[in-house]
Amino acid sequence: MITVVKVGGKIIDNEDELKTFIQLFTSLKGDKILVHGGGKKASEISKRLGIVPQMNDGRRITDGPTLEVVTMVYGGLINKTIVSLLQAENVNAIGLSGADANVIQSHKREGHTIEYGFVGDIDKVNTNALYKLLKAEFVPVICPITHDKKGQLLNTNADTIAAQLAGALAKEQDVHLIYCFELKGVLKDVNDENSILSKLNESEVSKLHREGIIKDGMIPKLKNGFDALKRGVSNVSIRHMSELNKSSAGTQLIL
Amino acid sequence: MITVVKVGGKIIDNEDELKTFIQLFTSLKGDKILVHGGGKKASEISKRLGIVPQMNDGRRITDGPTLEVVTMVYGGLINKTIVSLLQAENVNAIGLSGADANVIQSHKREGHTIEYGFVGDIDKVNTNALYKLLKAEFVPVICPITHDKKGQLLNTNADTIAAQLAGALAKEQDVHLIYCFELKGVLKDVNDENSILSKLNESEVSKLHREGIIKDGMIPKLKNGFDALKRGVSNVSIRHMSELNKSSAGTQLIL
Repeated sequence: MITVVKVGGKIIDNEDELKTFIQLFTSLKGDKILVHGGGKKASEISKRLGIVPQMNDGRRITDGPTLEVVTMVYGGLINKTIVSLLQAENVNAIGLSGADANVIQSHKREGHTIEYGFVGDIDKVNTNALYKLLKAEFVPVICPITHDKKGQLLNTNADTIAAQLAGALAKEQDVHLIYCFELKGVLKDVNDENSILSKLNESEVSKLHREGIIKDGMIPKLKNGFDALKRGVSNVSIRHMSELNKSSAGTQLIL
Repeated sequence: MITVVKVGGKIIDNEDELKTFIQLFTSLKGDKILVHGGGKKASEISKRLGIVPQMNDGRRITDGPTLEVVTMVYGGLINKTIVSLLQAENVNAIGLSGADANVIQSHKREGHTIEYGFVGDIDKVNTNALYKLLKAEFVPVICPITHDKKGQLLNTNADTIAAQLAGALAKEQDVHLIYCFELKGVLKDVNDENSILSKLNESEVSKLHREGIIKDGMIPKLKNGFDALKRGVSNVSIRHMSELNKSSAGTQLIL
């Protein structure tokens, strides 16, 4: 069994939260892969560098200067910080972008009415390389940068990477996917942190979205989660990091 | 036989030179490891971020903000750019800092009259991890960031990394170390690019240094080269990248 854990930006942004997460991830048994998001650091660095963020419908356009920043921040600062913290806990972490060991190959998103810039849609997860690393007892720590195998780095959503990576591995092994975030799960009432929806299927999500109970930001994450289930991942949940090691917690997605 | 190649900042700084180097490194046969330096990008980014470089005797002091920048630029931007360019040439590159797979463990340089900041002196090269990666047919691409295994990233000179890494591997295998730079070798006359000193031993270097023929900047590189020879590396040379694939070229160091 392989556990794929996605940890989000809000945990990474907070040094204490990150350290707590590292402890929890360390105690997770068995083969595991960590996928991390970006957080506010890239925006902060962009701002300090005088790069004006180009947004379109709430989406950041990854222009050339922004790609440089996310490559630096996600692939350098955040990835190496997480790896060194894990190594301090004797987790033999190895940080990877999609280019490293050709782990995740993508192509530049094109042919849309919206210009996304240097954003990569995943073509292929190289499970062979991941299995080699796991077999050698390394713990892959993956940042949300991919490549097109033609020398171009691309920015890819970390939730999507986690889902497609888990889905690809599920062809050969039992895979669990955990989206770790700052809440206890998907909430029925945003003002009551204990109103966790313990199970959710796609039609319930559509209904709750229409009723305004599940907000836009959560929709792509849930979509990725259902996508992973359809690709054969046996267990997909969205939970608070403190429940990372529980066999069942937070919101479990079901088909 | 393993070839360890160090490529310097001046080649990395120039996009065309870097692409030429990538082609040459690609055509190098057998097991190989690339160690890359920093280049001007870190200074440029620091400047744009408003970080005032702290220098001491011509040495940059790696304070906290500077460590962040070098981690971003060396570990993120430069490392991932090189890896993606190599992947485009079907070289199965995997980018590493010293923290990744615990490849290079160091300690913060202290107890000197000069304050170096977050600079790491190497304690141990984890050859076991490197052999695992080479055996899995990956080509390690190493940036000049190490860690202390207690969660602290540190800045370490790339020439030193190349020498100590080659020296550590030489305990088990025949290792060649090539310092690739913009000149054809160590020159007897700096105005004559063909006045290459084809062989150099330590006492000749001392003499040429006293005579002002070899300048300060070259001394640490040569010192690292002799150090590698003493650790058992069978061949250490300093040469132009265009001669990377020659069995003998540039300046060869001898004991």
